[in-house]
Amino acid sequence: LEETCVISSGLPPTLEWTVDERGNGALRLIDQRRLPGELAFVECRTVAAVAHAIRELAVRGAPAIGAAAAYGVAIGARDDGGLAGAEAAAAVLRATRPTAVNLAWAIDRVLDAVRSAAGGEAGDGIGEDEDGAGAGLAEVALRFAHRIAADDVAANRAMGAHGAELVPFGARILTHCNAGHLATVGYGTAVGVIRAAWEAGKAPTVWVDETRPVLQGARLTAWELQRLGIPATLVADVMAGSLMASGDVDLVIVGADRIAANGDVANKIGTYTLAVLARHHGIPFYVAAPTSTIDAATATGADIVVEERDQAEVTELAGVRIAPAGMVARNRAFDVTPAALVTAVITERGVTRPPRS
Amino acid sequence: LEETCVISSGLPPTLEWTVDERGNGALRLIDQRRLPGELAFVECRTVAAVAHAIRELAVRGAPAIGAAAAYGVAIGARDDGGLAGAEAAAAVLRATRPTAVNLAWAIDRVLDAVRSAAGGEAGDGIGEDEDGAGAGLAEVALRFAHRIAADDVAANRAMGAHGAELVPFGARILTHCNAGHLATVGYGTAVGVIRAAWEAGKAPTVWVDETRPVLQGARLTAWELQRLGIPATLVADVMAGSLMASGDVDLVIVGADRIAANGDVANKIGTYTLAVLARHHGIPFYVAAPTSTIDAATATGADIVVEERDQAEVTELAGVRIAPAGMVARNRAFDVTPAALVTAVITERGVTRPPRS
Repeated sequence: LEETCVISSGLPPTLEWTVDERGNGALRLIDQRRLPGELAFVECRTVAAVAHAIRELAVRGAPAIGAAAAYGVAIGARDDGGLAGAEAAAAVLRATRPTAVNLAWAIDRVLDAVRSAAGGEAGDGIGEDEDGAGAGLAEVALRFAHRIAADDVAANRAMGAHGAELVPFGARILTHCNAGHLATVGYGTAVGVIRAAWEAGKAPTVWVDETRPVLQGARLTAWELQRLGIPATLVADVMAGSLMASGDVDLVIVGADRIAANGDVANKIGTYTLAVLARHHGIPFYVAAPTSTIDAATATGADIVVEERDQAEVTELAGVRIAPAGMVARNRAFDVTPAALVTAVITERGVTRPPRS
Repeated sequence: LEETCVISSGLPPTLEWTVDERGNGALRLIDQRRLPGELAFVECRTVAAVAHAIRELAVRGAPAIGAAAAYGVAIGARDDGGLAGAEAAAAVLRATRPTAVNLAWAIDRVLDAVRSAAGGEAGDGIGEDEDGAGAGLAEVALRFAHRIAADDVAANRAMGAHGAELVPFGARILTHCNAGHLATVGYGTAVGVIRAAWEAGKAPTVWVDETRPVLQGARLTAWELQRLGIPATLVADVMAGSLMASGDVDLVIVGADRIAANGDVANKIGTYTLAVLARHHGIPFYVAAPTSTIDAATATGADIVVEERDQAEVTELAGVRIAPAGMVARNRAFDVTPAALVTAVITERGVTRPPRS
């Protein structure tokens, strides 16, 4: 159980499995709520702690919360009787956030492996082979969590390589929210494409949408790009239309929390507006996401549950009230972009262009 | 010089001329930087104080800064030698903010009256008639500033009456920034239309865009609508597209800082995005502004100077730093909406529908 899951050069790991001198493992997360002012970490030693970190956005981003939840199931299997503990953990973790499908996907992968190992039933074959005679169910679960984490980074690098081919030399790229290193186990999805273009010498520059209300762009994407040395400029979300009208945006690239079977994309609130603006200005609008984000069980965007979060995210910032007392707010965390507005989806398998409606 | 310019019921005056017991006049402004947390006032006794209040957004909104600058010219005429003082004040005040044409318009109106009274030259006729034998140039200037203030409220009420006819019963109206009481001498332009519809029993409800970076929607429009008792819900700017897609917006109405001769509209950054979204969803997009906002000398939106403001407005929110140190930001304060995206312009003279390109 000593291995750590991944290290991304240049940036501390978004999440990693750590083991102390007494052999006790824990999930260590960058506390993203405290960035960019402070680089601090949260150690989650219990299922409840992992669930809390996901719910309160200490860790966020669809692939990252998937991997975190996978480790959470492993903690459940370790602490609470193997299969029963894994199942109880899965139920708690699945309920933390409703929109990102990677969360359920990762939980189910670990749970299936534990069930398979526990019952000797037909799983995906890997758990059974490696479990063998003596290794505990907790070890099976942890091994699967490690695999999910490693696979995520590999998928992001592959996505970056595919996506970079779509990026012209010197492209001025607009991105929204954080679909970067911090949204994944490492490297990033949308920001991964930008990184790959940068590493390929294409000299992109980035417009970073601040991304109200939780400011993932201003706090997280800006921080990442600074650390990576990629030139970036922060703007309020309201400036995107003006930048496109003045000819200062060559392409838009965002991540995804869930992609329906018909190609509709749920992503951070404000994404849909960018897609409409991009179409109006004839600018390519790309979505970069691992195939685990594609949910065959969701027919269209209309079937995606969009999380509504606390009004206080809108009426307050860092404890400072910005609206008058008693003001009511709405706070949809995501919106849905129809497939027809998406120029292409970039996954680890390649680039697919949805049919236009 | 004792008269105050206007009182709007339900809300304290955005600006008013006050005279103390020794006969000294001053321009008293609501300090809009401190709303909604505190209702405080600034007393401007000098031209420099008025210029500072405009530049630092203690008073903002195209009609309000026009009226404030008119009083500033009157202070210049009073304190610094009549015509020479008025001209010096005009030069200082004209340079405070570049985009709103009402500012130059109001300054020129007062200055022309003072010049006319000083030289006996042909003005617009009113200054000469009322100046007569003995009244000083300062009094002429102040009388014109009072007229500009009173005309603004009358124009807004007329605009409200015209615009309310466009508002269906129970309309869910999205507005951006603050084009209300606080943006004018009283009643408001875009919010004036909402008020008139409310007073006519049409039971509108309002989506208030928070309007980053300076949060005029969250701080000012929310405060006004609360005081007026008009049901309103605050949203982050990024939610507008989602609200339109879910069928929750019946019309959009905004103010304007300058309307070019061809009907292109400069207004708060983010307005253009709303116009593109409204067109995409087939939702009416209205602009409410007094005719003093229409600038015949500006042929098209491309000729409008768009103010760029301090990066700190983007990198900080309510005094809290939200971006990493050293992060570069851009901060265009306005954008330009082409006339073709504007369903109709509502002025004090009526409703005009620009030709579609």
